[in-house]
Amino acid sequence: MSQVKEFNEYRVAMNDKILGANNKVIKRFFNLDTNAYQDGALPMKTKELLGLVASMVLRCDDCIRYHLGTCHELGITEEELYEVFAIANLVGGSICIPHTRRAVEYWEALEAEAPTA
Amino acid sequence: MSQVKEFNEYRVAMNDKILGANNKVIKRFFNLDTNAYQDGALPMKTKELLGLVASMVLRCDDCIRYHLGTCHELGITEEELYEVFAIANLVGGSICIPHTRRAVEYWEALEAEAPTA
Amino acid sequence: MSQVKEFNEYRVAMNDKILGANNKVIKRFFNLDTNAYQDGALPMKTKELLGLVASMVLRCDDCIRYHLGTCHELGITEEELYEVFAIANLVGGSICIPHTRRAVEYWEALEAEAPTA
Amino acid sequence: MSQVKEFNEYRVAMNDKILGANNKVIKRFFNLDTNAYQDGALPMKTKELLGLVASMVLRCDDCIRYHLGTCHELGITEEELYEVFAIANLVGGSICIPHTRRAVEYWEALEAEAPTA
Amino acid sequence: MSQVKEFNEYRVAMNDKILGANNKVIKRFFNLDTNAYQDGALPMKTKELLGLVASMVLRCDDCIRYHLGTCHELGITEEELYEVFAIANLVGGSICIPHTRRAVEYWEALEAEAPTA
Amino acid sequence: MSQVKEFNEYRVAMNDKILGANNKVIKRFFNLDTNAYQDGALPMKTKELLGLVASMVLRCDDCIRYHLGTCHELGITEEELYEVFAIANLVGGSICIPHTRRAVEYWEALEAEAPTA
Repeated sequence: MSQVKEFNEYRVAMNDKILGANNKVIKRFFNLDTNAYQDGALPMKTKELLGLVASMVLRCDDCIRYHLGTCHELGITEEELYEVFAIANLVGGSICIPHTRRAVEYWEALEAEAPTA
Repeated sequence: MSQVKEFNEYRVAMNDKILGANNKVIKRFFNLDTNAYQDGALPMKTKELLGLVASMVLRCDDCIRYHLGTCHELGITEEELYEVFAIANLVGGSICIPHTRRAVEYWEALEAEAPTA
Repeated sequence: MSQVKEFNEYRVAMNDKILGANNKVIKRFFNLDTNAYQDGALPMKTKELLGLVASMVLRCDDCIRYHLGTCHELGITEEELYEVFAIANLVGGSICIPHTRRAVEYWEALEAEAPTA
Repeated sequence: MSQVKEFNEYRVAMNDKILGANNKVIKRFFNLDTNAYQDGALPMKTKELLGLVASMVLRCDDCIRYHLGTCHELGITEEELYEVFAIANLVGGSICIPHTRRAVEYWEALEAEAPTA
Repeated sequence: MSQVKEFNEYRVAMNDKILGANNKVIKRFFNLDTNAYQDGALPMKTKELLGLVASMVLRCDDCIRYHLGTCHELGITEEELYEVFAIANLVGGSICIPHTRRAVEYWEALEAEAPTA
Repeated sequence: MSQVKEFNEYRVAMNDKILGANNKVIKRFFNLDTNAYQDGALPMKTKELLGLVASMVLRCDDCIRYHLGTCHELGITEEELYEVFAIANLVGGSICIPHTRRAVEYWEALEAEAPTA
């Protein structure tokens, strides 16, 4: 199974279990999290890039993968992507390099599934 | 091998090696770490929940697994567990969500081995 | 002005400004944050200790002050408090010591205002 | 002296001392840091927002202040600003709230000095 | 009062209070912390530099001040110091720059009190 | 394939891809990162230990592996290594223990490939 499918399937399956536990605070928090990235004063694309850079400096591979997936759907170019990586590495330091490697690997998997034009 | 056994065996084997190296500071630090969770003014159960929430906001999967194991032995209910997850996610942010997923998966493995009544 | 009053006044004044900006995500997030510490499967007191230990290991002095204030109102004893400090310092490391110093100073200010019996 | 002037003067004075020490790695690192926010595939405005959100989730008040200053010069609106705050608080958690308070205070100081039209 | 004296007096006064609370885990942890920097396979000077770089990347100003004080006593040169700053900034990112500024300010205060030959 | 070879091959392959993307900021940042550990006022060995302890307290397994590799080449002894681990665990807390376990495992793999005399 591709890295992309594996990530998405696990994510959906576990989120279902978490939401199924009926903890109101967690349910509302998960809901809020998806709301934050909708079009507003800032376009969705900018917000996804904000989510991506925040995930990189906080060094969360799964959060990076999630935002890479959405960025890919929104048609972010590789050049734009690397400018986000550059800021993440400068602000967060060389400790972000291993996460950048895995991000590049995941982006290749996204491209293999659905190449951008 | 179950996720629980694999985690515990690796943990014990590597701790033995670390302690075998005879670095006094590390030996005393490891010893102190187990002491901190004993019954005191606060009961052991509360202390394990404190250890769990601290591990979640600092986003250390292995530390989360360790405290989930002890919480399970102490009879923490799923409802209590999710209230800890809720606080961890609110204080630590959505960056804790992937760790919550893996925590839920590990809790299921603990339940599969020794179901709570 | 006492450290406690200064902290509370600034906190309330700025929260009012933030909520006044009418960003829905932030308003709902702030609301959710207060909900997470209500009595539930776990009592409010335990939840405040969870909030305190999470704030200490993430090293946020203002968050620590907020939870110390609530802990004080709920009648947490000094002995219980130090057991939370002990776990925070062990899990989070000596990097938490300066925050522990400021926490002790703030607790003294709380005691000076409204001594526990 | 205004909060803005005080921040900028200290920042410039200390940067001069740091660069005056003639450590090549630091000099090149500081230089690189200013390069990363130039117009490129992504416009400077987006990059400043990326720098701001990264600074918020990493909880560095001075870094936040620096990017708020540049965002203000670039004409970022308050509505856009709060959408960045919303994402930072969701990704980074309630631990970012005290930094959001100080960010709002600093933004007010920037507005007092040079109100946006 | 000089920045150095103020820091040291507060540090000693609050440590005394913390140790006076008689929490065994905290007392042993504080004791262990001072033990870790004694001469061993690595000389004390190297260990203090390790403590300094760790404090910088974890961005704890008071911890940085403490290690700067000891480094100053041990005769660390400014050139050596800046090489530590360089590594801290590269590994930890530009988020460490404001802490570097305050570190340089504190080092100047140390020099003003007791200039190195 | 040994853990060491697997790590190094992935690292080199992904770095090549990242550098191949021709983002100037990232290229210069990667270049700077290798420069920071050259002999200077502080010897290379001390700098590698600084890189190692910074990687441990920031809890980046791949960064730890990279510095362990260089430390091994430079002939760092096990006793010296554990003194670095001790400081990392004290400063960074028990949250560093799982990373210490994996560091010890990787060091064994390095020793298996090229035992120190």
